[in-house]
Amino acid sequence: MKDSNALERSSNAGVVGRKPRVVILGGGFAGLNAAKSLAGAPVEVVLVDKENYHLFQPLLYQVATAGLSSGDIATPIRSILRHEDNVSVRMAEATGIDRDSRRVDLADGSIFYDYLMVATGTRPKYFGPDRWRKHSTPLKTVDDAIALRRQILYAFERAEQADDAETIEEWLTFVVVGGGATGVEMAGAIREIAAEVMVRDFRTIEPEEARVILIDAMPAVLNGYPEELSEHARQELEDRDVEVILDSPVEDIREDRVEVDGQTIQTRTVVWAAGVEPTPLVQSLGVETTDGGQVPVAPDLRLQEDSRVFALGDIAYLEDDDGQPLPGIAPVAIQQGNHAARAIRDLVDGESTQAFDYRDRGMMSTIGRKSAVGVVGNWHLKGFLAWLAWLFIHLLFLIGFRNKLSVMINWAYSYIAFGRGSRLIVGDVHERNALPAETDTDSESEAA
Amino acid sequence: MKDSNALERSSNAGVVGRKPRVVILGGGFAGLNAAKSLAGAPVEVVLVDKENYHLFQPLLYQVATAGLSSGDIATPIRSILRHEDNVSVRMAEATGIDRDSRRVDLADGSIFYDYLMVATGTRPKYFGPDRWRKHSTPLKTVDDAIALRRQILYAFERAEQADDAETIEEWLTFVVVGGGATGVEMAGAIREIAAEVMVRDFRTIEPEEARVILIDAMPAVLNGYPEELSEHARQELEDRDVEVILDSPVEDIREDRVEVDGQTIQTRTVVWAAGVEPTPLVQSLGVETTDGGQVPVAPDLRLQEDSRVFALGDIAYLEDDDGQPLPGIAPVAIQQGNHAARAIRDLVDGESTQAFDYRDRGMMSTIGRKSAVGVVGNWHLKGFLAWLAWLFIHLLFLIGFRNKLSVMINWAYSYIAFGRGSRLIVGDVHERNALPAETDTDSESEAA
Repeated sequence: MKDSNALERSSNAGVVGRKPRVVILGGGFAGLNAAKSLAGAPVEVVLVDKENYHLFQPLLYQVATAGLSSGDIATPIRSILRHEDNVSVRMAEATGIDRDSRRVDLADGSIFYDYLMVATGTRPKYFGPDRWRKHSTPLKTVDDAIALRRQILYAFERAEQADDAETIEEWLTFVVVGGGATGVEMAGAIREIAAEVMVRDFRTIEPEEARVILIDAMPAVLNGYPEELSEHARQELEDRDVEVILDSPVEDIREDRVEVDGQTIQTRTVVWAAGVEPTPLVQSLGVETTDGGQVPVAPDLRLQEDSRVFALGDIAYLEDDDGQPLPGIAPVAIQQGNHAARAIRDLVDGESTQAFDYRDRGMMSTIGRKSAVGVVGNWHLKGFLAWLAWLFIHLLFLIGFRNKLSVMINWAYSYIAFGRGSRLIVGDVHERNALPAETDTDSESEAA
Repeated sequence: MKDSNALERSSNAGVVGRKPRVVILGGGFAGLNAAKSLAGAPVEVVLVDKENYHLFQPLLYQVATAGLSSGDIATPIRSILRHEDNVSVRMAEATGIDRDSRRVDLADGSIFYDYLMVATGTRPKYFGPDRWRKHSTPLKTVDDAIALRRQILYAFERAEQADDAETIEEWLTFVVVGGGATGVEMAGAIREIAAEVMVRDFRTIEPEEARVILIDAMPAVLNGYPEELSEHARQELEDRDVEVILDSPVEDIREDRVEVDGQTIQTRTVVWAAGVEPTPLVQSLGVETTDGGQVPVAPDLRLQEDSRVFALGDIAYLEDDDGQPLPGIAPVAIQQGNHAARAIRDLVDGESTQAFDYRDRGMMSTIGRKSAVGVVGNWHLKGFLAWLAWLFIHLLFLIGFRNKLSVMINWAYSYIAFGRGSRLIVGDVHERNALPAETDTDSESEAA
């Protein structure tokens, strides 16, 4: 630590009054909280993100299932950081990192740093042939969510127009691959709009007969939760007529079907929620990563190899006191962002940094209307009260007054009227959507 | 009229109990109101639209300028017509009309009618070389509005990243071609977000110095309004620092400039609001159209040539008692939709149809915050009261409780906090946006 501080001081020695520059890559939970916590510190902060907004990812599935619009869960980063005078925001994609010259290459230039925080998060991880990527849609970005919403809503339209029972069933079958939080939420929500929203709008088909099938290679949904809660979630899904296929890795995904466990499921809509991996940018750090592609960090969240570089959030690998890796969830990212900011303040003060200590406040997942599971310390929550708690916590964390209010109204409306206000099919489905029947070319351009 | 009724009866004679089928093409103001007014009539109604939503077009410019999200001004057609048991909705694009066999060809099939209502509205009209279409964006669909929003917001980001004053100015110059209601609203709103919203979010550039230039070939903005109000609107725009260039047709639009009146304006963002023309579908009716491409209709809104076919809304040409063509505005379309529905009821009752009589309740246009102009009978409205009236009327007409509430909240929020809640750049600007500097290929796919 001492060495690096000496280095820092010497590198600034020639430039009287120049504040150290902290470059933060990624405006997710980790990066954004780091930037906010650096407000007023004697450093110049540049937050770089390829989007102009911070996304509240835990509610992204609501955009994909027409419960919220994208504006409800995303806020321009510039607005959030408007009052932090020492923080500037740059909308650009980081394409590489050169640690030797302390430079980040951007799609349209480059930027030098004194300290770097890499917090670029994850992207969907695919295994299996390339066509899997083509014939399924992930849920990681706003664009993914809008694409999924279009596909799901359009599937009902196609079913309504079809003449034969087989085609109708194919369009009314939705497969979700991956039984983690995202998969469970998506399966529950698709089943919900089919049975409670769509059912009122269609004349020919019976939307409530839509099949929703959740597939996971593991023997339980919501891995990482206590067995009792996993089992409760599975039971709740089945009570809502979601078919849950466990212990069965997907064998194939084609334009009109999914193969699993020896069965062929005819379907036109496949949600890919089977896992994520760090963005490829982390490779340009040139450090050894874990099998999952994460960057191991020292207890203070800096690289072992480079005391000027922090890795934060989902891309960082750090174990807790019990030797368990910290999960890739928002609370970890938020606390790490805040911790890294504190470390920077210590470093510019010439003090040594502290070890990151994760305060586990629990985790929650919702299964659908009135149902959720959660772990808070030794408490296991489930059912309606867990759902209320989930609702409350998510509203609380949403950034920005307007969003909170608007989300609350949308939810209240959904809850009272089952309306699903954002049920628009935007974008030209005929051209842009990965509709296998019509656009089964070799181009991969429509995939992720 | 008698002939056609005889024909109608005979064509149904062989099919006991089969109700006549009314096919409505287009779920805009005309088509949607026709469908609603046919609720409970002894006919089978099929409303066909290529989108799944009805769009409240008068507020589309608010989506383009980040004041509202698309979900606020669009409602699924199925939801609106949920309770009309004799109405079904089909999401499909109509590609042709064969009047001899009373058939509409759809992108994915065909449908036969006893009566047809064509209400497919207009699309942007271009004059000048093809590159004009490529280097400007119209404002007609939700996708257009989202593309424009992306371009406008992205222009500020690009300006912030630029190094030289010339490039910054280029990105901060916005040209609106066409001084009709859409052009005036867009120019006013872009100026407003620059001066009152963006100004708080950027560090390097001065968004309030953004130039907004409104160009029209005619000597006044808001043609069709009394001269006093046109002049007031021009004055209001100039008071808000919009540069208004009148009497000057655009001479050229290129990737980085607009040429008009001998000047070259360096710009990266051009809004095309210079006119509309009926959708090409009306050509397949095989009737003679006006110079503007509209379909002349008989006083009861049916074609002169075919008593089974109605033309409604913006595509129909009909003169009022003073010999003036009815304008292409929502109230005309709404009243025509209702009238056509009444005519159908008369026809199936074996009665003769009535002539359409437009009840002119006036028209309004907004220029920006606290400013609008309107004509109601002999009254000329302008200023703050006109704006309040405009606000009230638009809220009143928005379909659906939730939308009204959500719009009201967004507006109240904008008004109090100048927040512009929907300021997200969605879609991949680098790939999909018509950014001339980066994607100046020959492909026209990103245009219109």
